Amino acid sequence: MKKIPVKPLWWHNGLYVIDQRKLPEKEVILKLDTIKKVYDAIKNLKIRGAPLIGCVSAYGVVVSFIENENLPLEKLKNKIKKDIEILKSARPTAYNLFYALNRMEKVVNMFNGDSKKNLKKLLIKEANNIYKEDLHACYKIGEYGNALIENGMNILTHCNAGGLATSGFGTALAPIYVANQKGKKIHVYVNETRPVLQGARLTSWELEKNRISYTLICDNMAGYLMSKKRIDIVIVGADRVARNGDTANKIGTYSLAVLANYHKIPFYVAAPLSTFDFNIETGEEIIIEQRNEDEIKKINGKYICPKNTYVFNPAFDLTPNYLITGFITEKGILKTEDIKNLGG
Amino acid sequence: MKKIPVKPLWWHNGLYVIDQRKLPEKEVILKLDTIKKVYDAIKNLKIRGAPLIGCVSAYGVVVSFIENENLPLEKLKNKIKKDIEILKSARPTAYNLFYALNRMEKVVNMFNGDSKKNLKKLLIKEANNIYKEDLHACYKIGEYGNALIENGMNILTHCNAGGLATSGFGTALAPIYVANQKGKKIHVYVNETRPVLQGARLTSWELEKNRISYTLICDNMAGYLMSKKRIDIVIVGADRVARNGDTANKIGTYSLAVLANYHKIPFYVAAPLSTFDFNIETGEEIIIEQRNEDEIKKINGKYICPKNTYVFNPAFDLTPNYLITGFITEKGILKTEDIKNLGG
Repeated sequence: MKKIPVKPLWWHNGLYVIDQRKLPEKEVILKLDTIKKVYDAIKNLKIRGAPLIGCVSAYGVVVSFIENENLPLEKLKNKIKKDIEILKSARPTAYNLFYALNRMEKVVNMFNGDSKKNLKKLLIKEANNIYKEDLHACYKIGEYGNALIENGMNILTHCNAGGLATSGFGTALAPIYVANQKGKKIHVYVNETRPVLQGARLTSWELEKNRISYTLICDNMAGYLMSKKRIDIVIVGADRVARNGDTANKIGTYSLAVLANYHKIPFYVAAPLSTFDFNIETGEEIIIEQRNEDEIKKINGKYICPKNTYVFNPAFDLTPNYLITGFITEKGILKTEDIKNLGG
Repeated sequence: MKKIPVKPLWWHNGLYVIDQRKLPEKEVILKLDTIKKVYDAIKNLKIRGAPLIGCVSAYGVVVSFIENENLPLEKLKNKIKKDIEILKSARPTAYNLFYALNRMEKVVNMFNGDSKKNLKKLLIKEANNIYKEDLHACYKIGEYGNALIENGMNILTHCNAGGLATSGFGTALAPIYVANQKGKKIHVYVNETRPVLQGARLTSWELEKNRISYTLICDNMAGYLMSKKRIDIVIVGADRVARNGDTANKIGTYSLAVLANYHKIPFYVAAPLSTFDFNIETGEEIIIEQRNEDEIKKINGKYICPKNTYVFNPAFDLTPNYLITGFITEKGILKTEDIKNLGG
């Protein structure tokens, strides 16, 4: 495995994460040692990005164990399962949350032993597996995606689907990291990504840290750049992909996909299989989270509009499969048809 | 003439404007009594919007007269003409600036009398004419545009092409004001318009003041709303229109036009003829202003990205004629072919 670009979480007798609300100004480390803190970190975007939400929630189940380890085994198991339900309610769209928590729940349900110590070991092992699998998947995404990137290319990305959104290698940024490590000359255009500005705050920070050439733009500038032939490829992440390839991702992704289609620019979604929800046929079944109006109305604590203003604030939108050129996954670059077959 | 929705400038023995950088928080009135102040107000967006820039620059020439009226007549005329050149350099894209200043310059050049008092009268008269013509043109735009708006419609607009961008009635907002005055039930979606947030700060403020129902969105949400069939028509303003109908307007307009085209939603540009530059054949000849990087990098004085970040900050983009359904002008709703004929 190559050098990891960013380390947004680690387990060292406890769960530690970077508080992403504080970036790029400060690197603040949080210890998430109660289920309340884990829930709050996910809910309030201290950590975000579908694969990272998966990893943090998995370790969150270990946190639940430690917080309650004085309970008798059966009560402990029930408490952990209740905490899993709480974590599942933190955010509705990112599939990795459910994927990871379902795997952790299975460990609890399958456990027949009578040693709490053994249950703890198994929970830590499964959380570690989820973490390592994500690291591996993201690196494979990087390797497969790298084949799409030619020397001298200008790549547009939206939001942060980088190391900070995953175990450390990123999804949409993984091909960029691999291409850079292999010495290709590339340039990244970063959409600032209103309202929470994950592009400006996080993607810029990551690319800066990894010395990759980039330019920050406002979301409404991407079309103009495309019309000037200054974008060669668009790569975005995903929060949930349905069996037919319809993709929920950060609000603004759909507009980019339409713009890319109009300008005949390839549009790729990079995501590990843990983001694919094989239980749903189409994107219409995906719940789109509506977030607090103050995310739009206030910036740095100050109103940017009249206080009574009514706003619409969906965190995600839905991009239909026919606007997506392909999916960059750890199994290779897939077309819509391939996804159905994978899901069995 | 119907009630004017907003009064962004007035002449009362001097030139007064609302400082639009302070809205919506505070309504601050500025007296622009030196050419330096007029230049600064235009350059630094204290006043903005192509038709308003035209009106303010016209009265700015009167300010130049008053500032220099102790000079002998010929020296005074030369000084005024120098100040006109200074004002022309304040911003490169909005055509109304050149349209209005060329008219004022003509008054100076044509003046054969020897009474400074008479020159002053003629300058005030021409500035008043430019102002009144704009007021009339915008109201006619409102009346013609109103015919496109049906009861119950959802209208999307970008930036601020309202009363604040003109003599008081607006361009893109004029049809909305007229439809509202005629009792039609309408709803306006307002793009916040990064980086300077004219939609959030100014359009919201105007609509709120005029009790018109509206919802503020981030620029990257428009496509999603269109996909959900929640937008019936898009109306935007213009900073300059070429003879072939290519239109320079606030950055983000082009993306909206592509999105509207994809979703088969009518896309109209509302502008008085003073915004049409009949000297240029296509939009390729229009200079697109590049603005300061801090407009993107800082919000309310605080960085939203690493300090070294490189940004791209065009104030406008170019929408080709074939993406524009029609032009709402004081002469009626025009198609591209009609513009050429108007220009002679």
